[in-house]
Amino acid sequence: QPIFQEQGMTETVHNWEDHGYLATYIKKNGSFANLRIHPHGLVLVDLQNYNDHTKGREEADQLLNKVEERMKELFHGNIKRVKRLPAILRGGVIDRYWPTADGRLVEYDIDEVVYDEDSPFQNIKILHSKQFGNILILSGDVNLAESDLAYTQAIMGSGKEDYTGKEVLILGGGDGASNIDQMVIDGCKKYMRKTCGDVLDNLKGECYQVLIEDCIPVLKRYAKEGRMFDYVINDLTAVPISTSPEEDSTWEFLRLILDLSMKVLKQDGKYFTQGNCINLTDALTLYEEQLSRLYCPVEFSKETVCVPSYMELYP
Amino acid sequence: QPIFQEQGMTETVHNWEDHGYLATYIKKNGSFANLRIHPHGLVLVDLQNYNDHTKGREEADQLLNKVEERMKELFHGNIKRVKRLPAILRGGVIDRYWPTADGRLVEYDIDEVVYDEDSPFQNIKILHSKQFGNILILSGDVNLAESDLAYTQAIMGSGKEDYTGKEVLILGGGDGASNIDQMVIDGCKKYMRKTCGDVLDNLKGECYQVLIEDCIPVLKRYAKEGRMFDYVINDLTAVPISTSPEEDSTWEFLRLILDLSMKVLKQDGKYFTQGNCINLTDALTLYEEQLSRLYCPVEFSKETVCVPSYMELYP
Repeated sequence: QPIFQEQGMTETVHNWEDHGYLATYIKKNGSFANLRIHPHGLVLVDLQNYNDHTKGREEADQLLNKVEERMKELFHGNIKRVKRLPAILRGGVIDRYWPTADGRLVEYDIDEVVYDEDSPFQNIKILHSKQFGNILILSGDVNLAESDLAYTQAIMGSGKEDYTGKEVLILGGGDGASNIDQMVIDGCKKYMRKTCGDVLDNLKGECYQVLIEDCIPVLKRYAKEGRMFDYVINDLTAVPISTSPEEDSTWEFLRLILDLSMKVLKQDGKYFTQGNCINLTDALTLYEEQLSRLYCPVEFSKETVCVPSYMELYP
Repeated sequence: QPIFQEQGMTETVHNWEDHGYLATYIKKNGSFANLRIHPHGLVLVDLQNYNDHTKGREEADQLLNKVEERMKELFHGNIKRVKRLPAILRGGVIDRYWPTADGRLVEYDIDEVVYDEDSPFQNIKILHSKQFGNILILSGDVNLAESDLAYTQAIMGSGKEDYTGKEVLILGGGDGASNIDQMVIDGCKKYMRKTCGDVLDNLKGECYQVLIEDCIPVLKRYAKEGRMFDYVINDLTAVPISTSPEEDSTWEFLRLILDLSMKVLKQDGKYFTQGNCINLTDALTLYEEQLSRLYCPVEFSKETVCVPSYMELYP
């Protein structure tokens, strides 16, 4: 109490009796603190400041140092664990928190909003990370960063394939290499050049063509024409997190793409695709089950890589 | 207000006038919520529960859904941004928050405390991560996980060195491959076998010997005896974060190690060491400056790798 009062904070106390104690300390400058004491000995202190965050952090650290010191005195050093978490920055222009596919809180070193637009399909952000370079974030999901060559290498077969003279069909491509959404292409062309190079400047080159349209009618047309490929690389979407494959339309979409892809793949052709966060074991197992339900028998293998900007391992 | 009252929560309001408004809602079961409204339109809602966390999260999500829905109604959908962060779990047996070297908050998928002991030198934890396997954490710093072969490969020269018949001196080794702290060796020998193999079962093998002692007297003895190595691999400690190299004893230690290492290195020998998080540019630049201050001229190069469990790029 005296420590918070020294800061000019006024106290309001709530006593639950059964559930312990909550004190709220309010400061004139708009800051406040909660001190929550649980009967079995857990003490939680939350500070909330609204100001220049370097100054706010210093003030918060000083206050917390005093609280910690005083508590150690009171309990004669008999404290099992002390943990202080970095401050969470909310409400600023820059949002640094982009949870992983398995729902963990991770803070990125974002220092600039490079691009932020809504297309008819999704919200498209390109944010600059000090270590990862520009990161493409589609409707809140981290898609690809300039640091993530490992992703592209893996989805191309980890350097074990010889593409010379081969026919390759790439579906999707979060880096804008092929996408239904013209605005993703526009953003990536300008701000993700380390990823897409000059491929998007002209949608047609000597040995490639980029189609900005729904891939399903295109696949159906190719199948009808009997156009066959040595490789199909599906970079459309991650394995759905939902584990109701009969109900979820993303699973239906995924099976349709798989079936159509097999139809345009040569006898000894290969199909590459991404999985999802390694911790989503149920979803990944379900995906493997879909593979046994295809109209034609297939063999498959999998490989896990570390994609720097994902902050999780990715099969 | 009605949404919180529906939950049986009692309200206490503080009005700053200049700085907006804080409402604290308290529930009989020991939960509480803060609703902080800033005059320029930032609204922050914090919920704190103490209970089974799956149930707590569901309740919290339902409440937040209602608040979000009501706010969208009140503002006719005219809300610039809505962001909900994953819950932070505090006070449990398992601590999932191990900030990066550059101070960012990251949540690990820790599901088990495998080893937790205090040695005379440090706190030693080995925690199990679903994706990274066992992780060695020394006094709060993530040292190495079973997923981190990339670290070991990089500090050995990224596969470009031929060690056949060479004399190699390894200083340190967070994986217990060489360490002053017997308790780290004990923990790693048992729980980090994917990292250290059977090397620590016997401290002496056909082509290696592990010394558990302070490396400085050993280096001095080698230098005096004229014992020379083809490689010195310094895995003792990361580049210090402090940028006061004249005052900080870690920098002094680092210079001493560097000087002694050069003394036991053959004319064309190589010295490998780790840097620190790529964002700590000042510390890394200072380290490079130390290299030009050695008693003998050296050439150096650097390489950045992605170490899975670090969640940051590491030169």
